[in-house]
Amino acid sequence: MEKKMVEVCYTPKDYEYFKGRFEIVVVIDVLRATSAICSALNNGVSAVIPVSTIDEAKTYQEKGYLVGAERQGEIVEGFDFGNSPYSYMKPELKGKEIVLSTTNGTRAINIAQEADQVIIGSLVNLEAITNYLIRQNKNVLCLCSGWKDKFNLEDTICGGAISETLINSGNFSSDEDSSVAAKYLYMSAKDNYMGFLKSSSHRRRLKRLNLNKDIKYCLTPNQIDLIPTLQNGKIVKLNN
Amino acid sequence: MEKKMVEVCYTPKDYEYFKGRFEIVVVIDVLRATSAICSALNNGVSAVIPVSTIDEAKTYQEKGYLVGAERQGEIVEGFDFGNSPYSYMKPELKGKEIVLSTTNGTRAINIAQEADQVIIGSLVNLEAITNYLIRQNKNVLCLCSGWKDKFNLEDTICGGAISETLINSGNFSSDEDSSVAAKYLYMSAKDNYMGFLKSSSHRRRLKRLNLNKDIKYCLTPNQIDLIPTLQNGKIVKLNN
Repeated sequence: MEKKMVEVCYTPKDYEYFKGRFEIVVVIDVLRATSAICSALNNGVSAVIPVSTIDEAKTYQEKGYLVGAERQGEIVEGFDFGNSPYSYMKPELKGKEIVLSTTNGTRAINIAQEADQVIIGSLVNLEAITNYLIRQNKNVLCLCSGWKDKFNLEDTICGGAISETLINSGNFSSDEDSSVAAKYLYMSAKDNYMGFLKSSSHRRRLKRLNLNKDIKYCLTPNQIDLIPTLQNGKIVKLNN
Repeated sequence: MEKKMVEVCYTPKDYEYFKGRFEIVVVIDVLRATSAICSALNNGVSAVIPVSTIDEAKTYQEKGYLVGAERQGEIVEGFDFGNSPYSYMKPELKGKEIVLSTTNGTRAINIAQEADQVIIGSLVNLEAITNYLIRQNKNVLCLCSGWKDKFNLEDTICGGAISETLINSGNFSSDEDSSVAAKYLYMSAKDNYMGFLKSSSHRRRLKRLNLNKDIKYCLTPNQIDLIPTLQNGKIVKLNN
């Protein structure tokens, strides 16, 4: 049986080099958009609507939606919350559709929309994601959200974790240097994500904003056993 | 004393995010353009003129220059040589100005031209480069040539080696995640470049073309004690 591909793309800007070759795209924004989405669906939020711009977010707010909006790590003034996973654990959100716009994550989700299937990955739902992907046996691209079109360490490590696990299953292989490097970075990081990422630029950025509790949550793997997936422009829980 | 920056940029396409902040840009194309340039100057070639397009290369050829041109790892038909370092060790090249156009390396050199100083780095002249940079004490960008605007492993490792050595000197620091990751990849690779890079896509590409001897040469550090630098559009030996 021919092996399926699993590759890691470092930024939404690089997506053009990978586009069209993968049935499933896993969008990753560990700090913090995709971790927050996992947290929201796990708390019973019925759907997260990802929007790219603050203007779109405002339009939804005017229609009465609860809207999260984050730029540069901070809540955008006038919105209900940012992208702290803890904001999405509140009981009043259960059963609701909410809207989210973030610096990098929601942009990556919208760019990936042309793929057959878009799922949302993070360290918090790593095992759920890899178990699912191994069963699907389709070509998989891990699309890192990066930071303003630049490489970031935590998303790359998560992509490396996914590809390493898929390759170890025996049915997948990687061809791109970006994937090989992501796997090596994951191997160096896996025993101590917090320590390894202490020099990551976004961790430093969030630490300055007193968001250490968020960082710890986002870097703790396998807390959530579900897979968010994009369906008709909304992120919902995949029934698998 | 405030520390100087040393950062690693993965591809010429990403240069726009780094541009203007660094006095010295080190252009890296380990397999094989910058290794070949080091080899040429070490053999007594007086200057290497880097050109981006095959058309420019042809114009120089018509003027009587010896011209190297490589695309996809192979010599372009009608030219004198490609970018094998061994082609540049021939006695008949001593004292001559030659021209070179390659898939990635010469493009990166031309993109970096706007910096105060452009030098040419590779594993073969690693120690010469790092000793020089430590003495200069200026902000340094390691610009990897990549492969057609995609990340490549061997250039990143060389960038990681340069930044790690500069940081260890005590006078430099890195801020970007790309630099942190490059340093980690170098640490994983440094005891066995050939083994570490066996899964690199360009190493596989060159192996298919029976260029194993070239690969071994390019991955053997510190064979050449000189620094090629760009002066008025020509790469010459730096008198330092």
